Amino acid sequence: MQDCKTAVCLLSGGLDSSTCLAYARRQRFECHALSFDYGQRHRIELDAARRVAAALGARRHVVMPIDLRVFGGSALTGDIAVPKGRGAEEMAQGIPVTYVPARNTIFLSLALAYAETLEAADIFIGVNAIDYSGYPDCRPEFIAAFERMANLATKAGVEGRTSVRIHTPLSKLSKAEIVRLAEELHVDFGLTHSCYDPDPAGRACGQCDSCLLRRKGFEEAGIADPVEYA
Amino acid sequence: MQDCKTAVCLLSGGLDSSTCLAYARRQRFECHALSFDYGQRHRIELDAARRVAAALGARRHVVMPIDLRVFGGSALTGDIAVPKGRGAEEMAQGIPVTYVPARNTIFLSLALAYAETLEAADIFIGVNAIDYSGYPDCRPEFIAAFERMANLATKAGVEGRTSVRIHTPLSKLSKAEIVRLAEELHVDFGLTHSCYDPDPAGRACGQCDSCLLRRKGFEEAGIADPVEYA
Repeated sequence: MQDCKTAVCLLSGGLDSSTCLAYARRQRFECHALSFDYGQRHRIELDAARRVAAALGARRHVVMPIDLRVFGGSALTGDIAVPKGRGAEEMAQGIPVTYVPARNTIFLSLALAYAETLEAADIFIGVNAIDYSGYPDCRPEFIAAFERMANLATKAGVEGRTSVRIHTPLSKLSKAEIVRLAEELHVDFGLTHSCYDPDPAGRACGQCDSCLLRRKGFEEAGIADPVEYA
Repeated sequence: MQDCKTAVCLLSGGLDSSTCLAYARRQRFECHALSFDYGQRHRIELDAARRVAAALGARRHVVMPIDLRVFGGSALTGDIAVPKGRGAEEMAQGIPVTYVPARNTIFLSLALAYAETLEAADIFIGVNAIDYSGYPDCRPEFIAAFERMANLATKAGVEGRTSVRIHTPLSKLSKAEIVRLAEELHVDFGLTHSCYDPDPAGRACGQCDSCLLRRKGFEEAGIADPVEYA
């Protein structure tokens, strides 16, 4: 460990990961933001990630290319259509086609590698298990199992120097609570991008799961979302 | 699960992973081999992986580019020199600079994603915890923790359909035993590549940890290695 606490923060450019990065900065971590260009159809989120990383004072922002389309199997990377207009009940039923196989496992593994080269023990990820799409790799039991594995996988764990910690400050917050926390942390909402299926001009569709969850969160928090919908 | 058992087999092109693939084939798995172009200085191993995958009848062979050099921190991907001529005692002391941070965690995570899109539950990796370089992510306790995490990370685990299994058939074999097993499974040793630091003509150096372990294995097994040393 270095004197100054260093952390790796996964950053998609969406509301949750941006709030998570702001939270880590408030906790006085020097943050290395990590984003992935993985073949997502909403690749425009990487521009948002760049803006957010700069605005929140990340020490460095790495955008790593990793083409998950070679495996296929998701509406976010393949040719399957993104579902629109689903209600809360529908979202609660099973895992949707926007699930990307093992995505958070892959992203956390790469964050772990980055952290190890920085000799950092702290990794932040903005997963949420309340107002979410039902992805298995957002659940607290998954995160706990990943953390345990990470401490057996790396030099630091073996040499007993330090323990890897996966921080999930948003895990138990509702979307409205995340919006309120983001406001308290001065996150510039207008810089973030949540939509899975933006139009050619980059405007959010307003109807995919991610848009619907975001809109519901702002509405319940009583805060206006500056993001423009198509 | 499909009727025919499908497996994802990590394949570097070295002796161990080639033997592991041959073992999976003998167990009648239909094998999808997965290799990584990760910035390794011994990139020539990918040619070996292609030859081996074809010779052993893999259904498909995916070589995925993933540039781990963006993180640095290893003699295998960075500018640090590969250590030569180390004795067994020296190898037993601590983790060498050829360790690539979180490499097996990353490779297994990507194998997990590939397996999930194939609806396969079986992943093979040729890790060995006897005649090895002391990497933390080759140890049985790491593999067990990864397997547990994988079953919480994926659709199949959540829906209780099937359990992910990480197969490590070489884990407890000495290098000599691996050589004998490879011979029994008709692995063509001449197709494989183990050296971390080959010369421009692709010949093995004979002095890095990987070469030394390989040479010791063949010697103890009383089998001639057709690989040419510089």
